Amino acid sequence: MLRIGMLTSGGDCQALNAAMRGVVKGIYSKTDDVEIYGFQDGYKGLMYSNFEMLTSKDFSGILTRGGTILGTSRQPFKLMREPDANGLDKVEAMKHTYHKLNLNCLVILGGNGTHKTANLLREEGLDIITLPKTIDNDLWGTDMTFGFQSAVDIATDTIDRIHTTATSHSRVFIIEVMGHKVGYVTLHAGIAGGADIILLPEIPYDIDVIADVIERRAQAGKPFTILAVAEGAISKEDALLTRKEYKKKIAERKYPSIAYELEQQIQEKMDKEVRITVPGHTQRGGSPCAYDRVFATRAGAKAAELILNGQFGYMVAMKNGEFTQVPLGDVAGKLKYVDPDASIIKEAKITGISFGDE
Amino acid sequence: MLRIGMLTSGGDCQALNAAMRGVVKGIYSKTDDVEIYGFQDGYKGLMYSNFEMLTSKDFSGILTRGGTILGTSRQPFKLMREPDANGLDKVEAMKHTYHKLNLNCLVILGGNGTHKTANLLREEGLDIITLPKTIDNDLWGTDMTFGFQSAVDIATDTIDRIHTTATSHSRVFIIEVMGHKVGYVTLHAGIAGGADIILLPEIPYDIDVIADVIERRAQAGKPFTILAVAEGAISKEDALLTRKEYKKKIAERKYPSIAYELEQQIQEKMDKEVRITVPGHTQRGGSPCAYDRVFATRAGAKAAELILNGQFGYMVAMKNGEFTQVPLGDVAGKLKYVDPDASIIKEAKITGISFGDE
Amino acid sequence: MLRIGMLTSGGDCQALNAAMRGVVKGIYSKTDDVEIYGFQDGYKGLMYSNFEMLTSKDFSGILTRGGTILGTSRQPFKLMREPDANGLDKVEAMKHTYHKLNLNCLVILGGNGTHKTANLLREEGLDIITLPKTIDNDLWGTDMTFGFQSAVDIATDTIDRIHTTATSHSRVFIIEVMGHKVGYVTLHAGIAGGADIILLPEIPYDIDVIADVIERRAQAGKPFTILAVAEGAISKEDALLTRKEYKKKIAERKYPSIAYELEQQIQEKMDKEVRITVPGHTQRGGSPCAYDRVFATRAGAKAAELILNGQFGYMVAMKNGEFTQVPLGDVAGKLKYVDPDASIIKEAKITGISFGDE
Amino acid sequence: MLRIGMLTSGGDCQALNAAMRGVVKGIYSKTDDVEIYGFQDGYKGLMYSNFEMLTSKDFSGILTRGGTILGTSRQPFKLMREPDANGLDKVEAMKHTYHKLNLNCLVILGGNGTHKTANLLREEGLDIITLPKTIDNDLWGTDMTFGFQSAVDIATDTIDRIHTTATSHSRVFIIEVMGHKVGYVTLHAGIAGGADIILLPEIPYDIDVIADVIERRAQAGKPFTILAVAEGAISKEDALLTRKEYKKKIAERKYPSIAYELEQQIQEKMDKEVRITVPGHTQRGGSPCAYDRVFATRAGAKAAELILNGQFGYMVAMKNGEFTQVPLGDVAGKLKYVDPDASIIKEAKITGISFGDE
Repeated sequence: MLRIGMLTSGGDCQALNAAMRGVVKGIYSKTDDVEIYGFQDGYKGLMYSNFEMLTSKDFSGILTRGGTILGTSRQPFKLMREPDANGLDKVEAMKHTYHKLNLNCLVILGGNGTHKTANLLREEGLDIITLPKTIDNDLWGTDMTFGFQSAVDIATDTIDRIHTTATSHSRVFIIEVMGHKVGYVTLHAGIAGGADIILLPEIPYDIDVIADVIERRAQAGKPFTILAVAEGAISKEDALLTRKEYKKKIAERKYPSIAYELEQQIQEKMDKEVRITVPGHTQRGGSPCAYDRVFATRAGAKAAELILNGQFGYMVAMKNGEFTQVPLGDVAGKLKYVDPDASIIKEAKITGISFGDE
Repeated sequence: MLRIGMLTSGGDCQALNAAMRGVVKGIYSKTDDVEIYGFQDGYKGLMYSNFEMLTSKDFSGILTRGGTILGTSRQPFKLMREPDANGLDKVEAMKHTYHKLNLNCLVILGGNGTHKTANLLREEGLDIITLPKTIDNDLWGTDMTFGFQSAVDIATDTIDRIHTTATSHSRVFIIEVMGHKVGYVTLHAGIAGGADIILLPEIPYDIDVIADVIERRAQAGKPFTILAVAEGAISKEDALLTRKEYKKKIAERKYPSIAYELEQQIQEKMDKEVRITVPGHTQRGGSPCAYDRVFATRAGAKAAELILNGQFGYMVAMKNGEFTQVPLGDVAGKLKYVDPDASIIKEAKITGISFGDE
Repeated sequence: MLRIGMLTSGGDCQALNAAMRGVVKGIYSKTDDVEIYGFQDGYKGLMYSNFEMLTSKDFSGILTRGGTILGTSRQPFKLMREPDANGLDKVEAMKHTYHKLNLNCLVILGGNGTHKTANLLREEGLDIITLPKTIDNDLWGTDMTFGFQSAVDIATDTIDRIHTTATSHSRVFIIEVMGHKVGYVTLHAGIAGGADIILLPEIPYDIDVIADVIERRAQAGKPFTILAVAEGAISKEDALLTRKEYKKKIAERKYPSIAYELEQQIQEKMDKEVRITVPGHTQRGGSPCAYDRVFATRAGAKAAELILNGQFGYMVAMKNGEFTQVPLGDVAGKLKYVDPDASIIKEAKITGISFGDE
Repeated sequence: MLRIGMLTSGGDCQALNAAMRGVVKGIYSKTDDVEIYGFQDGYKGLMYSNFEMLTSKDFSGILTRGGTILGTSRQPFKLMREPDANGLDKVEAMKHTYHKLNLNCLVILGGNGTHKTANLLREEGLDIITLPKTIDNDLWGTDMTFGFQSAVDIATDTIDRIHTTATSHSRVFIIEVMGHKVGYVTLHAGIAGGADIILLPEIPYDIDVIADVIERRAQAGKPFTILAVAEGAISKEDALLTRKEYKKKIAERKYPSIAYELEQQIQEKMDKEVRITVPGHTQRGGSPCAYDRVFATRAGAKAAELILNGQFGYMVAMKNGEFTQVPLGDVAGKLKYVDPDASIIKEAKITGISFGDE
């Protein structure tokens, strides 16, 4: 008898269900002697022993469905070592649930924060397999994560729609794309949507450069400018601040987000109407795109193979188009950033896109 | 020889090109002895005699294309009687262009403000035919306008995506839908997207009612709430202000829009995470939906018929599924609001939707 | 205590779930003292007493979901009076189930065939409310049916995609749209997709006219032609046959459908490559469009109102934008055809579309 | 002065315009001293010196547009060495145009057949750069081609729609996906769409295995089966025929395509309703997906770099996520097939998909 726990943690994204379906179908293809414990709302379900027994039927028909049938929640890693409001030791509680249910392993789907906790549980002796889930594609050790391409599709669709209306007016359109620390979604959606300016957390911007691009476009008979900005984009000036100073500045700014701050910065430089679009959580929603479904299904099948082989302590990863595994200890706590010198950046610049830096 | 001027004015929307194509195809089906003058950027093109001669070829392949091949601009009606920066009399300038080019008529595509100026030009002796273009569906005298259904589709798609992610978290999701004075888009998208709360300019809301809905949903095991709010939604309190007092209050508020104000109002009442999505100008962009293309094509054909019959001074309108014409003088300056007692509101309430009013 | 039976019958379509949700939400908004019996797979479930007890929870989250949670099947009306394979009297069996469960009424969602049986059950003394479901929009007594606009959207999307590839090649593209007897979907999708030729069951075509259109387009520098044909389109020649002769001819033809027959007819007339697209059942699938969701929700609410008022023997119908009821006896057995003299046909012809008839 | 010829050849697909835009933007970013000659309708334009001078403006706004602004045509490689109807030597004619216009190089976008001719021209001394365009992803030497992911998206969307309607009925649904020789599109769309059976040209099928899958699903309470079949799928029996015998058999079969043949084969084995969907050329149409736009833009930038460096005789290729070049001589005439032993096939089988082979 194989006893498998499963949970989804962190901000949700597309293809979580597809990935879990892949794992479960993969297990059942080899054995029916299995019990699946689905923990509710991420690590919280494991802590408080809140779960449901699931059968293969529960995973039928969910390939195309957004969200996660298990629910999710954010459980910051830095609080994991602190007791909860009732004094409960969170890590001990999770271990207790795991051992009480006599689990053979725990399948965890999540992003960066999730992997830190997953690795902690591994260090505490639990048998863990993780799947790389995040729209941000910022997990170290894998070429790709599921959720990313779906988010890019949605952000691109947003820019496309703005484009058709932009050509009718003389304005600057700012589209704020998800990504606090890492700019992959903005980068890809910006290129795909034909943005004129792309601002990423990894490439600090100079507002004068931006104003200059807008100006030069106007002079060349293109009265509108499309600007795709990642939530965490930062000016060259702010990039010089310490982390603490910057956090303080953000907390005090009177704008709800970077798009509104940019609007003001632009309008200080020039007399231009600005329009803002914030697709927000739409970027995490809806049915996963075909790419993500294939990725998640394959990753799930790979996870099933590892589980059946008794290989634990790994994240399933994609390397050069094939699925493999990387040790959790190598992954946890490391972010994969956009490299400002990557060829994709150079290629984007060659085709006329400004990153606001030069 | 038939000489036809054409312009698109006001905020752009889907199916402007489809409608112009309908007009032009309709004219050419009866005669080749025609000249089409396309004025650039709305009434501005007419004022400053900025136009291009167009042929049937220019209207080929644009049925599905968003935006407008003529460009558009907002020219507030209240400034029409005032001279421009160089002292030019705008109305006289437009009449001058019309007569100088020896036009037989002017085809104008636009919304509420556009129709006020169109009617003014009619009163000044020009032969005018207008087409009802606006995502807001707020034009008096027609059951429907083109642009509306496309905007509803996009706003609904936004709510759909939020829905899948909403079910994974315990939050209030606010989607801000276009509509400063009139709530049709929000109403239809809200029903179509399964919003729990819909806030319209026509039905002032009570924040306590909203908090109550959120609370009762949570108690019924539905931890999330979807709130669709029109840009111009107003609280019962603010609805008591004079127009002047309200404008002052809006100008002074520290939030960029109603969604952010609602977020704060909700968080004053309860401890709930709120997430905001502002689809913004995406609601005006992209290819028109099938409904709008059929509507715009038929309306264009109707306009062609009127022009060929020499019937001027009308807006093309849809009444009970058929296209007809209504006198411009009856249309100009009147808005069509959502009736709080309409059957659609009652039907929506029956299916459990709250309008925040009771 | 209110006991309500519910079933969906005939070819499935979008918004069936949305409509049932509307009914159930509408009932529960007035009373909790209700039992819902969901019969499986249409009238079959009623015949063989195959049902599930459903609660409001079963109807939660299904607004956007295609298909029907109850399943459906085709039960030809003409066989209703004949016993089944085991000698069971079908009508008596349905009445028996109804009375055995002590139902207050039966809510039936379906199209033309479904309404004939619904009316038969009404004549047999059952209390019936029906909802107008069909992609064909061919139900007599209502301006619109749900499913239609979604099908038009999909067929239009198909033509759109063909259009982009068509412009790159010199070919005739045939898109076969659903509609055996009635051509509304083809008509609307054809106009919306910018088809050059639209062939409907209601307007017999002449292959020489079609060849002529293709020829004249080529001469005018437009090497490709887009032809949208309804499944049931018929040549002028075949339209002269008796129904029996025509059925025989169809049964004997060696082509799987009209598109393939047209291909051959065209290639007999000219040397042209032809490409065929058959979107088929995709036209019934996927999430309903916003229009259909609003329509179905409102129709459901109206049905709930009728049930709570004890008004039975009606189909919910839309007339001039408002929901009302029409007696089942007036509806059953009548089809609503496209009128060849309707203004939409004239308007389409004015904009250059050929119906292959002149 | 740089003189660049450009042409698109073979079946069209998405992102052709995006790729050409990338090349041209990349060239103009370095020099304005350039002339672009766009040949009409593929190699035909080069043969008959049918071209237009293009400027950067012609490539503006086409990133998102399907089709190709240059037009395309199929010019079979095997006829290249034969004179045309007027006795013209095709290869000499193409060389003549190239030299007459004093071109520095020729940029060719196309698939397998196109590359054979491109390589022939290279051998004849012309300077060539090619870009890997095909929905089939069957070009040797590159991990990916543009057009593929867009085609997968559309085929997946087709299967999705069928899925929702399938669950309401008890039927076998066959979706015929493009791919005469190579099954990548069917493979990926089949996995993404949750097909139960996937039939590829590379894995001959056994109709008994297919019947068995349908039977076992029905016994497990799943009355419907989704079968995704590539145009070129072949039975084990037919796979034993010589190429000539097989071609003869195909030519003589009375079905327009494999889907209709499978229908008959299935119905010979069991009493099951079958429904067929042929998305056909929709798979080549519409706006390219975000992935393809990024791919095509980057590939175009890479081509520009090669041109500016004077490196000719290459196809731009993607290897492990980076763009590089491979010698045309290595690419021409080789197809990249789906490997029946690839890990993606194994992973798909693990998740329960049958390939009809065992």
